[in-house]
Amino acid sequence: MTTLDAPDTPFAVVDVERLDRNAARLRDRLRQLGVPLRLHVKTAKSVEVADRVQAGGPITVSTLAEAEHFADAGYQDILYAVGIDPHKLPRVAALLRRGVTLTVLLDTVVQAEAVTSFAHKETLHLPALIEIDCDGHRGGVAPTDPALVQIGRALGDNLAGVLTHAGESYFACTPQALRQAAQNERDTAVAAAETLRANGLPFPIVSVGSTPTAHAATDLTGVTEVRAGNYVFFDLVMAGIGVCDVQDLALSVVVTVIGHQHDKNWILTDGGWMATSRDRGTQAQAVDQGYGLVADVHGTLMPDLLMTGASQEHGVLSTRDGKPVPDLPIGTRLRILPNHACATAAQHDHYQVVSGTTVEATWTRHRGW
Amino acid sequence: MTTLDAPDTPFAVVDVERLDRNAARLRDRLRQLGVPLRLHVKTAKSVEVADRVQAGGPITVSTLAEAEHFADAGYQDILYAVGIDPHKLPRVAALLRRGVTLTVLLDTVVQAEAVTSFAHKETLHLPALIEIDCDGHRGGVAPTDPALVQIGRALGDNLAGVLTHAGESYFACTPQALRQAAQNERDTAVAAAETLRANGLPFPIVSVGSTPTAHAATDLTGVTEVRAGNYVFFDLVMAGIGVCDVQDLALSVVVTVIGHQHDKNWILTDGGWMATSRDRGTQAQAVDQGYGLVADVHGTLMPDLLMTGASQEHGVLSTRDGKPVPDLPIGTRLRILPNHACATAAQHDHYQVVSGTTVEATWTRHRGW
Repeated sequence: MTTLDAPDTPFAVVDVERLDRNAARLRDRLRQLGVPLRLHVKTAKSVEVADRVQAGGPITVSTLAEAEHFADAGYQDILYAVGIDPHKLPRVAALLRRGVTLTVLLDTVVQAEAVTSFAHKETLHLPALIEIDCDGHRGGVAPTDPALVQIGRALGDNLAGVLTHAGESYFACTPQALRQAAQNERDTAVAAAETLRANGLPFPIVSVGSTPTAHAATDLTGVTEVRAGNYVFFDLVMAGIGVCDVQDLALSVVVTVIGHQHDKNWILTDGGWMATSRDRGTQAQAVDQGYGLVADVHGTLMPDLLMTGASQEHGVLSTRDGKPVPDLPIGTRLRILPNHACATAAQHDHYQVVSGTTVEATWTRHRGW
Repeated sequence: MTTLDAPDTPFAVVDVERLDRNAARLRDRLRQLGVPLRLHVKTAKSVEVADRVQAGGPITVSTLAEAEHFADAGYQDILYAVGIDPHKLPRVAALLRRGVTLTVLLDTVVQAEAVTSFAHKETLHLPALIEIDCDGHRGGVAPTDPALVQIGRALGDNLAGVLTHAGESYFACTPQALRQAAQNERDTAVAAAETLRANGLPFPIVSVGSTPTAHAATDLTGVTEVRAGNYVFFDLVMAGIGVCDVQDLALSVVVTVIGHQHDKNWILTDGGWMATSRDRGTQAQAVDQGYGLVADVHGTLMPDLLMTGASQEHGVLSTRDGKPVPDLPIGTRLRILPNHACATAAQHDHYQVVSGTTVEATWTRHRGW
């Protein structure tokens, strides 16, 4: 029986009971709302995680490398949810020719014309969603922008629907703000869909989602799918806005105490930013968690202790209030609970999967583009 | 002939002429100072880079995975410069038994006793350096700390020397401050060495280094080796403290324009933090470079443009002064010059190696622990 005392540190751990609980929570919510999940696999990038959440179900990917990897594992309905660079269309075509329903995303007439022209030349149906901007967070056209209908027309038969992502919901800090973000995300997507349909452009898909809005939505009328991914692991940023509890965090990084600086009230570990990432997502929140909270190797939080500094392979642990750090001898193993699961997971190629503190499996993580 | 227009973006590029120039610059400096280089390979983690700088020469590593990888490639003199976790000693022993001179680092009596006991049990000579704290940056004992001699005694025949790293030099912003950091680094290491030797403890190695101090030192009397690694690529943090010019940066990330938000004066690219890392190392400097400066695909800087935002696979480019962003159509390729080469390189498994804009080779990068 392998335990978390065996592998050399640092390494990533997934608590499979928490993963299952997080998966079940959203599954139940969406069942009640009557809308299917399209899991975003960019957080875990692991077939084993996706299989556990919804084996073979529709997925969202952030790179074509993910699309190819999950297609190899049997996933057949894949949405590539980053605006398409026309240079990448040959890889999209290769996936379509393998029988995968690979849907692309775009928000300009230039991209729509490139897709239509490429699809025509290759005699392919190349389904594309139009990205709708619901909150000024990143890409997309406003539902009132005349470009929306122009893009729809330029796509012709390749128009598969509309998509929006409430990226600003990551900064919504109250249940009311989260509900409003969810309502706005749904309303904006449906408004864009209605505009296109009113202009004689039919399509099946109205896609919305983010982990915060998926957990806050109360009405998804007109929506055909919800995308979420971070929630399988959750993280301190999500806990900070109240979408989950710290006890729901399924991903952590095991590190070892390698030194002390008593006069500075520091504990040094062998887990630096290479193990946790440089993500400081809680910096802008009400409670800045540094590079993460600290638990013992069994996962029990250590009050007052957090990871306050990071170099490449060194972590600095200290206390928020200047209390003396606990007496943790050289060799003590600890877990760091991350700010941002997507970024921390990306630093690792494997997850040690634990139930309690027994390692039950090693899952692999894909990477690259 | 492959050019930077061929691979799908994002991908990492190394300008080999700049790499060679950076390598020659420090080689010349250290020749004048009469002290050999022990290249830190943690920045590039690439045998091809190390071969280009000093093939087969002494190296520093930040993980045992690096040590094993470079040993496989024929590197025989390796310093693992992170305080040793006793749990990792079996892997150290395996390298020693392969004939590699693998030197470890430590700063406590507990670690020294673990090393001595392990070496005795395994009938190995296990060379160890004592880490000296020269500037309060991270680990190490002060040269005046009575623990220094206790650690030296606990190491017995395994005592191989002392090591210090002027980590605070990354925050030195004037030539004078850099020279002082270098002088202090040297003086502290030599003082510690003298204390140990005065207590009847002999050893051969006095190791100092960081990219800033290696480029600022004027006297290294008593020092036996200089460690530096970042300088092979350099980055915006190093340019910000004046150790290099922006024109020396050898690492960049090629990204593609995938959208525009004209009302926000934004250009969107397919290079997010997965491609650049979350490192915001210039945030604390006089000039905050966001997630990096922007050059055209040939490497010519685009005035006023910088990467100001990042999600996982999206970058946001905008201007510092609110000037309109240049008109860059969908599909335009750009290079992002990174804040921190070590962190950005870590996001990639390969480097496209260019001379001018012709891709001459693909080099691989190692990762993991």
